[in-house]
Order: sequence, then structure tokens, then C-alpha cells
Amino acid sequence: MNNYEAYYAQLYALAKEALSHWMENQSAPEPVRSAMNYSLGAGGKRLRPMLVLAGCDLLQGDRAQAMGYACAIEMIHTYSLIHDDMPAMDNDDYRRGKLTCHKVYGEGMAILAGDGLLNSAFEVMAAHMQRFPENLVNHVCALAHIARGAGIEGMIAGQCVDLVGTGDDAQSLTWLHRHKTGALITAALLAGLQLAAPTPEELEALREFGYRLGLQFQIVDDLLDVEGDAQTLGKATGSDAANQKTTYVTLYGSEKARELAREHSQAAVEALEIFGERAWFLRELTMRLLTREQ
Amino acid sequence: MNNYEAYYAQLYALAKEALSHWMENQSAPEPVRSAMNYSLGAGGKRLRPMLVLAGCDLLQGDRAQAMGYACAIEMIHTYSLIHDDMPAMDNDDYRRGKLTCHKVYGEGMAILAGDGLLNSAFEVMAAHMQRFPENLVNHVCALAHIARGAGIEGMIAGQCVDLVGTGDDAQSLTWLHRHKTGALITAALLAGLQLAAPTPEELEALREFGYRLGLQFQIVDDLLDVEGDAQTLGKATGSDAANQKTTYVTLYGSEKARELAREHSQAAVEALEIFGERAWFLRELTMRLLTREQ
Repeated sequence: MNNYEAYYAQLYALAKEALSHWMENQSAPEPVRSAMNYSLGAGGKRLRPMLVLAGCDLLQGDRAQAMGYACAIEMIHTYSLIHDDMPAMDNDDYRRGKLTCHKVYGEGMAILAGDGLLNSAFEVMAAHMQRFPENLVNHVCALAHIARGAGIEGMIAGQCVDLVGTGDDAQSLTWLHRHKTGALITAALLAGLQLAAPTPEELEALREFGYRLGLQFQIVDDLLDVEGDAQTLGKATGSDAANQKTTYVTLYGSEKARELAREHSQAAVEALEIFGERAWFLRELTMRLLTREQ
Repeated sequence: MNNYEAYYAQLYALAKEALSHWMENQSAPEPVRSAMNYSLGAGGKRLRPMLVLAGCDLLQGDRAQAMGYACAIEMIHTYSLIHDDMPAMDNDDYRRGKLTCHKVYGEGMAILAGDGLLNSAFEVMAAHMQRFPENLVNHVCALAHIARGAGIEGMIAGQCVDLVGTGDDAQSLTWLHRHKTGALITAALLAGLQLAAPTPEELEALREFGYRLGLQFQIVDDLLDVEGDAQTLGKATGSDAANQKTTYVTLYGSEKARELAREHSQAAVEALEIFGERAWFLRELTMRLLTREQ
């Protein structure tokens, strides 16, 4: 099936259904149950779970074995947003057009909701992998990819440096986004790929793809932020400080930043060569994320 | 070796050394690196890691296989304290005689330090279990015990109910402590036991022991708090609200609470019967925790 829209819709539906199933069946006490579901159900692109499934498809892995990681990585992404939005961090009142978790449930409950989603991600993975004892070595590696990507040498490292402030040069900015955004995107891809016992070369190629895709994704985000700000001056937001941060646009200007995003896209696509025709979706996705408008 | 002091010292030293080794080698960026080590290195009884090792010894499991879980559970315990101490939760300025993490590193960094320790616990377990491919099924179960005990039907459930306030009857209080304290204590024991492929009856017996030990531990904590408050009236603390909470002492009075602790101790010891002589240390530990003075 090389129809991009149909394939995308299929992966999106799989991710959405798995997350809905988890939300309906999770039995945390109130109000932390609602707080977790409020943020996890708030929508978004579901990019990371789709990348798990797309990574799995690259070597024709068993999608049923990848679903636990698809759920887990979205739960991790969501927990990081809940904690990032808090007053002591980015201090955002709104996300995706809705009040942030702590504005609805209070700061204490938002801390617990984030903790609950992070812990549940690993609980989901642990329960999931027990269903596949014949492939347990690869499942443990998949969990390890996600733990590393989300952890103190991955996403949390990026959040830490973002919080204390980074240098305003290109190298610092790239380090920041490689960790804060790129590490989890890469982990999603690797976790999916891992289930089909990839070679070291295949893992390395997909790691390079994830790195490039993550940077491209961030640069386009920066560009869209600038365009969005220009269109909605005066909108209610708690993140005035964010507007003063160094971004690829403040550093390079819009035109050069867009060129840089194109370069990363091209390098991303080149990294996929080892997978041949099976990488068609990730190639197409890369190009569409480059030209996305939100 | 049936010498309690020597055995205790041995387990304590093993737990301490493993944690020190992790702290020296962890490479998070500053200041989150220091914030995590500050709280993880702040001491405490190291009860939970010792329970992992003691659980492992019950069936003469391989202690080397248990060390990853011993580290992980103390990291989870520590993260829960960091987040619990924050202004939006218990609002404590001091813990174990030292300033709490957010007082030293700020609230944003304390959120990240907690997140970092929770995530690192799973990273440590995932890396650890890859060294024992021949026993991977049991390792995955051990990780699952810990994830469940720490999670939204375990410790986090208890934190949630504690935060919003619970009923002031005995049933509510027992539910609270069974989750907030007991679930992680039980998980520590089960994780250690799991590595030697226990029978369902052995798992169930140790679960009952953990439940009873957890309640006994909490009741003694409540008793010590009252005695401590009587001795140090006027000490600097941010947790005045905690003094108004329902505890076993406010509910039953000191004498009846102490009797209740004794009953749980006795039930705990009885639950160990299935393990015969090998449970000598846990029996002795139970009696000593009952009469501890701090």
C-alpha cells in the first residue's frame, strides 16, 4: 500500500484506538485519572506512536508487537508536556487550544498526572512484552531505546538545558533540540525497528534519520511559531518568555532557517537508503512535515 | 549467616555501593545531575533496596541479578519524595535534616530531578536485565512488579488520595498507606523473589508480608512523629498542615496504635512461614522495625 493518505490514516487510527483503550481501562483514583486522560486525550499529531509503527514496518515487523511501545511513547511525550507547561518551567496556560493540565487540576495533581503517565508508559511496556516471550530480547531492547531517549541523556537532558538557558549559538541550539525533541523521535523509530531484529547498520541508519527528522521538525516549528505570532498578535498566552528565546529563526532568519530544514530533510531521506523501497512512507512523511502548515 | 547486624550491614553496604556507583557515573547535564544526586545521596535507611536483596535471598536467588532492581527502587522512592516535598504537594522545606531538593535547586529543576530519577530507574533495570538473557522472563516480571507498585494503582494512587484528602476512618487510612507506602515495599520484595522463579503461593505469601510490614511501618512512623513533635516543639518545618492529618495515632490513640502495629507484625511474620528458616532475616527485621526509634 503506497497511498500516503491511507497509510497515514491507518497508523493514526491504530495509535488513537490503542490510546483510547488504555484511557478507558486505566483505573487510577480520581482526580489523577481524569487529569491524565485530559492531557493524553487532548489530541495532537500522534507523530511518535506513528513513528513506532512505521519503524516496525520498515523490516516488516509484527505490528501487534509494536503497539505497546506506540502507546508508551505518546504517554511519555504527554507527561513531558504536562510538566513543561507548569509555572516553574515554561508557565503556559494553554496547549492545543485547551487549558493546560495544571490550570484545570492544580499544580500538585499535574505533577502526579505527569508522574503517572511516565510510570504507566513502563507499566504498559512491561505488561505488553510478556505476551511475546519468543522475542523478549528484542522487546527489552525496545524498552531500553525508549528509556534512553526519554531519559537524562535524552529528552530530560534537553529540558534541563532549556530551563537554565543555553548558549545562543547554532551548536548549542542543535544540541538542545537533538535532546529535547530528537531523542524521543529517534527512540520511537528504533523501538519499532528493534522488534524485527535489525542489524547494527540498520539501527544506525534509522538513528541518523531520526536525528535529521527531529531537527527538521524543530526548525519548521520555529518557522510556524513566527508566522503564527505574526497572524495572532495579542493572543492570550503565558509564555511571553518563550518569544525571547533563541530559535533557528532568530539565529538565521526565516529564509536561511527554511533552507537548513530542507538540508536536514534531504539528509534524512538519504539515511533511509539502506531500507530501499520499504522506506517510502518515512520519505514521504519527511517531505510533508517539511511543508506542513501547523 | 544468621547474625542480624552483620547481614543487615552487608545488604546496606551492597545497596549503598550500587547507588554510589550509579551517581558517580550518571551523566545528566548540570544542574539536574547534582539535583538528582543531592536527593538520592541524602541517606535514609535504604530499606527498599535491602528488601529487594532480602527477597532474592529467600529462595537463594542470584544477588547479582537483583542489584539493578535494588538501585531502581531507591531511585523511585527518592523521586516520590522530591515531588511530594514540593509546594504544590506537601510543601516541606526540610527532609532528613537537609533542605529539600526544590529549596536548593528550584521547583523546575526539582520536577526534572524527580522525572530523571523515575526514568533512570527503568533505564537502569532495562540495561541490567540485558545481562541475564537466560532469565529474561523473570526479569521482565520483576520490572513489572516495580512498575505496578510505583504506579497509578500503587504508590501514585496513594499520593493522589493523600493530596485531595481521604476519609478519616480506619478503612480509608489503611487504603491510603497500603498504596502510598505499602505498594513499593511489597514491590521491592516481589522483584527480588521473582528472580528465583517463585511459585504463585510464594509470591502471594510475600505479598501478604509486604502488606503487613508496610502498615506496621506506617503506624510506627505515625507514633514516632508524635513523639518527635513532643520533643522538638517549634522546630522549623513547612509542613504544619501534615500535623492536622488523620493518622493512626489521631484515630486510635498511641496505645491502641502500638497494639495495631504489633498485630500487623505478627501477621507479617506468620505470612513468612512458607519460606521456613530462610526467612529469619525478614522476621527479625520486622520485629526491629516495630521497636525502632527513628
